[in-house]
Amino acid sequence: MSHHQTEAVVLLSGGVDSSTCLAMAAVDHRCHALTLHYGQRNHLELESARRVAVTLGAAHQVLELPLDWLGGSALLGVNGPHVPLSVDGVHPSRPPASGVPVTYVPARNSIFLALGAAWAESLGTPHLFIGVNRVDYSGYPDCRPVFVEAMQRALRLGTSAADLQIHTPLIDLTKGEIIRRGSALGLDYALTWSCYDPQDGRACGLCDSCIHRKKGFTEAGVPDPTPYVS
Amino acid sequence: MSHHQTEAVVLLSGGVDSSTCLAMAAVDHRCHALTLHYGQRNHLELESARRVAVTLGAAHQVLELPLDWLGGSALLGVNGPHVPLSVDGVHPSRPPASGVPVTYVPARNSIFLALGAAWAESLGTPHLFIGVNRVDYSGYPDCRPVFVEAMQRALRLGTSAADLQIHTPLIDLTKGEIIRRGSALGLDYALTWSCYDPQDGRACGLCDSCIHRKKGFTEAGVPDPTPYVS
Repeated sequence: MSHHQTEAVVLLSGGVDSSTCLAMAAVDHRCHALTLHYGQRNHLELESARRVAVTLGAAHQVLELPLDWLGGSALLGVNGPHVPLSVDGVHPSRPPASGVPVTYVPARNSIFLALGAAWAESLGTPHLFIGVNRVDYSGYPDCRPVFVEAMQRALRLGTSAADLQIHTPLIDLTKGEIIRRGSALGLDYALTWSCYDPQDGRACGLCDSCIHRKKGFTEAGVPDPTPYVS
Repeated sequence: MSHHQTEAVVLLSGGVDSSTCLAMAAVDHRCHALTLHYGQRNHLELESARRVAVTLGAAHQVLELPLDWLGGSALLGVNGPHVPLSVDGVHPSRPPASGVPVTYVPARNSIFLALGAAWAESLGTPHLFIGVNRVDYSGYPDCRPVFVEAMQRALRLGTSAADLQIHTPLIDLTKGEIIRRGSALGLDYALTWSCYDPQDGRACGLCDSCIHRKKGFTEAGVPDPTPYVS
């Protein structure tokens, strides 16, 4: 955390993966974190993104990107219902038990990466980080290296940043390994948020995202600071 | 304009190129036009997009995408100052004479295409149209076929729409040819807007975009309905 010679844009949702990605990027870069707010997703994750960015000393930009107009079709889109997706690549396989607006964002990582590339280009840095990993989310197309490489190629061709580098430091890590890395860097996971179905400010403990999170802490051997309902 | 069997998403700025692209797409598709409003660009182009969409019978979505936060860096970005860019690929080489907010949007067509792909995916259609052409804008990276092909590949990999088709019906046309096509389809170019430096609701007649437009009508042999200041 000493040099800060180069700048980097880091896509940040406030979940475990993107927060860890930011902590890793911050070791060698002065970071600019970009969070998208779709308008329908819960605010706890957004607040987590804010806390994580501040704590890690990153500049932070929350971009309001209302995508409600996609909703009608998206709710029952070609792949069936989906719950909100974090930038980490958390694509749960079933909708939440109740209460949470169901928001599937098609082409989400493509949108994120294009916007991140725009910021990186305007900052004059080639470094763009995204916390995707294929281990836990191997079934999802936009968490695969082949997608990231194709997007990097397209963005290099479509901007003046021919040297754009999309970094995916979590790509081969399990959730447990990710949490171990972040913990080693001093990241306080109490700042992060995963749950898609919070109740009175607490994580439900039952949704796919909570289950992934719990398993990750268990695997990492790190105490889970999350207040779960169950 | 008879069958309307398939749906299509068309990126629409309200300029000559994207409006013509919409008119061409509407021949064979039920169209959904997507316009991005950056917040800083002038409202005349946005109003033109609305009029063109209504006139051509397209569903229309204006997406507010505030990118002011890119501004500080972007104004004096790696490529120097730029004026607002239409989805058509109009990248003027110099800033407006005065008055117009200078807004350069890096990675613009990448952002547009990713958002358009999101809409197409949620509509369940593979058809996405963008009015880029390499003839007038050969110097600009995101108007080249190699970029569009790379983006199509990335978006196919990053969505469930493995059959996504990015259509570029203007890609090999000059401005004059574009205007001839649109005129043949009955498009009223008085609905469209090109000028970056309007004065009292009239086109300046001097900016790069006005000059391109004027030359296009002359080349097409079609009367130019634009009220120019000079």
